[in-house]
Amino acid sequence: MTSTSFIPEPAGSGKAGAGQVARMLEQFAVFGGLETGGVTRLCASAADGEARDAFAALLESAGAEVRTDSVGNQYGIFRLATTKGAPLVMMGSHLDSQPQGGRFDGVLGVLGALETGRRLMQAKREGVVFNADFCAVNWTNEEGARFRPSLLGSGTFSGRIKAEDALASRDDDGLTLAQALDAIGYLGTDAPPPVPACYVELHVEQGAILEAEGVPIGIVTRNWGAAKMDVCFHGEQAHTGPTKMRSRRDALFAAAQTICDVRDIADRWPDRIHTSVGRLVVQPNSPNVVPARADLSIELRAVDDDILRSAEELATQAIQKAAAKANVRVDVSSRTARPIRTLPSVLSDLIKLCAAETGHVCREIDTVSGHDALSLLDVCPTGLVFVPSVGGIAHNEREETHSDDVDRGMAVLTRVALRLCQSRGDPKQAAL
Amino acid sequence: MTSTSFIPEPAGSGKAGAGQVARMLEQFAVFGGLETGGVTRLCASAADGEARDAFAALLESAGAEVRTDSVGNQYGIFRLATTKGAPLVMMGSHLDSQPQGGRFDGVLGVLGALETGRRLMQAKREGVVFNADFCAVNWTNEEGARFRPSLLGSGTFSGRIKAEDALASRDDDGLTLAQALDAIGYLGTDAPPPVPACYVELHVEQGAILEAEGVPIGIVTRNWGAAKMDVCFHGEQAHTGPTKMRSRRDALFAAAQTICDVRDIADRWPDRIHTSVGRLVVQPNSPNVVPARADLSIELRAVDDDILRSAEELATQAIQKAAAKANVRVDVSSRTARPIRTLPSVLSDLIKLCAAETGHVCREIDTVSGHDALSLLDVCPTGLVFVPSVGGIAHNEREETHSDDVDRGMAVLTRVALRLCQSRGDPKQAAL
Repeated sequence: MTSTSFIPEPAGSGKAGAGQVARMLEQFAVFGGLETGGVTRLCASAADGEARDAFAALLESAGAEVRTDSVGNQYGIFRLATTKGAPLVMMGSHLDSQPQGGRFDGVLGVLGALETGRRLMQAKREGVVFNADFCAVNWTNEEGARFRPSLLGSGTFSGRIKAEDALASRDDDGLTLAQALDAIGYLGTDAPPPVPACYVELHVEQGAILEAEGVPIGIVTRNWGAAKMDVCFHGEQAHTGPTKMRSRRDALFAAAQTICDVRDIADRWPDRIHTSVGRLVVQPNSPNVVPARADLSIELRAVDDDILRSAEELATQAIQKAAAKANVRVDVSSRTARPIRTLPSVLSDLIKLCAAETGHVCREIDTVSGHDALSLLDVCPTGLVFVPSVGGIAHNEREETHSDDVDRGMAVLTRVALRLCQSRGDPKQAAL
Repeated sequence: MTSTSFIPEPAGSGKAGAGQVARMLEQFAVFGGLETGGVTRLCASAADGEARDAFAALLESAGAEVRTDSVGNQYGIFRLATTKGAPLVMMGSHLDSQPQGGRFDGVLGVLGALETGRRLMQAKREGVVFNADFCAVNWTNEEGARFRPSLLGSGTFSGRIKAEDALASRDDDGLTLAQALDAIGYLGTDAPPPVPACYVELHVEQGAILEAEGVPIGIVTRNWGAAKMDVCFHGEQAHTGPTKMRSRRDALFAAAQTICDVRDIADRWPDRIHTSVGRLVVQPNSPNVVPARADLSIELRAVDDDILRSAEELATQAIQKAAAKANVRVDVSSRTARPIRTLPSVLSDLIKLCAAETGHVCREIDTVSGHDALSLLDVCPTGLVFVPSVGGIAHNEREETHSDDVDRGMAVLTRVALRLCQSRGDPKQAAL
């Protein structure tokens, strides 16, 4: 057999390890599982701890060396290369979910990487010679649902975020990430692995383009830019009865005006910008008390840098206008920006080749949402592979990806890993 | 001595029992007390349980018979009359508070009633003859902060609310009032006392009129009408990234439009209507999830019935318009209305007389906020006495009423109780 076709094809299925990842996805859907089939597995919750335990156990039984770093990122290093200090090929995603989220988002990429590592180890045992090691990773707090910012673990690994800042991030109950990780036993002390030669992530599309076009594999070549703001309006608690309207300093009224204005920004550039306020926390939140404080999270995502800059300017003006009208004080407590970037063609070309080799049609696609792969882009060539989401439904319990599509994604991912780990992790050489 | 001047005047102070209620207010501010001097003592919380225990102990030591009814209302019956089955004069208010609320709101009326009962018992021991009994009461969940509607305990006593509906009311964590009362040992089994001959409540103004005019005693002659709506917008959870704007069904966007429109309603009738949204709960409340659900509480309070009706119509239209624009479904889960009513002059005349007798200037005043006295108006003549709030600050930790003003209010209240309990609870006879 050739070096790139070692995996025995099961009789009749025509696919290597068909259904294996889909079965593991079922098992992991139990951790934080909801009756609807979705999951609530917030970062560093008890359910996240259970999923992490299961991931670590599977890594160990697959022969990986398991590490947990200081922000809770979990790595499973598969020693494939015959020499020490060989380059590392890394794949992974995240096990945390949104509240009432889906069971594929993130988990697919983590279990896909685990299964890829298992297959590569099997190949090694069967005599395939590798010159790179492989690492399957679970990044902490990708979602940004419980702790902010999102992409926290991968952003720490890639140096954009300091570990101490990440650990000091607080949830809405005031608990720090450090406290939450410690509570589930994942405040690690291991050194992270070295920066990999390249990083590839398998993820569900979370949009409806692949499904609409009947294309099973999306190869991400560009990400939309994003600007995120955490805004806090500070008003003054008062009785909603006798307090005169002109004396009120209503933080929620300021927030409401802002939410309406942020929505209006999207209409200026149809289909080229998405805007949202998904989170709003009101204090003291009693029917007959003028709200003293309103914390909200604004997101702007655009396909074009100029649009994004203009939108951010408009949002900032809207916040100031709302604060003035409601006679409240405003703080923008954090701003994060994700620039529009192109993913390196050297990796997308390799993924295209592997899709062709495994007989799957593919297309180039943008990602509107953030992924850990975008954090890794700061330190190494990065690839991102999408498989179809039924109805484009995402961050919803009804999120679904067909088992056949999972298998197709896995076939491509395994092929990519195999070629990379036999080419010292160099995508150009791997495509030869 | 005459029958209406039995209370010994302490030498030098010129006031009966000066500072007594202010001292008890300090003691009660410990239950759920905050560093700022305010309190968070939500209905049927542990802190509320502690305050209730202290109230019951003080009632007992003052010689009252203590009862707790099925919705947790606490009564302390002082047997003053020489005959059984004598009419009852009732006074009281509530011990529950808003989150980060003040330590006078409600507590003043409860401790004022307790101290009044103590003084009347003392008078009885000193030979004063009464022909009515006296009851000091703590009504459950006046605030409506944890359980809705507000005025729940007094509304149950007066027959507007069924006890089973009151007990089934749920807080934002899904706990019922019955469960919460049971947890603190106040799911009572005692029969409530009979409907009183009349009810009088001492309360802080929560506005700034008395302070501005330098008048120590406000006699409430009318309440503003109120219309309250609990509204729930049902959208659909989706990813704030790839989900196209036109596909979104954003419950928070609908809520935000509603909040802005409700605020605008107030500008149509300046100083004749107060409007607010004090409470908004968003689900799942994650920065990158289109909100699936937003629950909000709207309040409209007006001095005129026609204005209130028009405002309610406008608010209903605003809700429907917002739901249509955000493409979400809307339920108005509850509507409660408090009509504009006049408090009976027979009682306000008696209070005026007693203010004059104790040497305190008074004025007639509206109440914009709801009070338990308004519930009792359904079953008996009711009086409501205000003392000044510093700066009109209410539902705020910085709420303050000067100790001298507490003493002035107590002097009037004691005089009113004394006259009523010597006149079979008949205000007309008591004013003779």
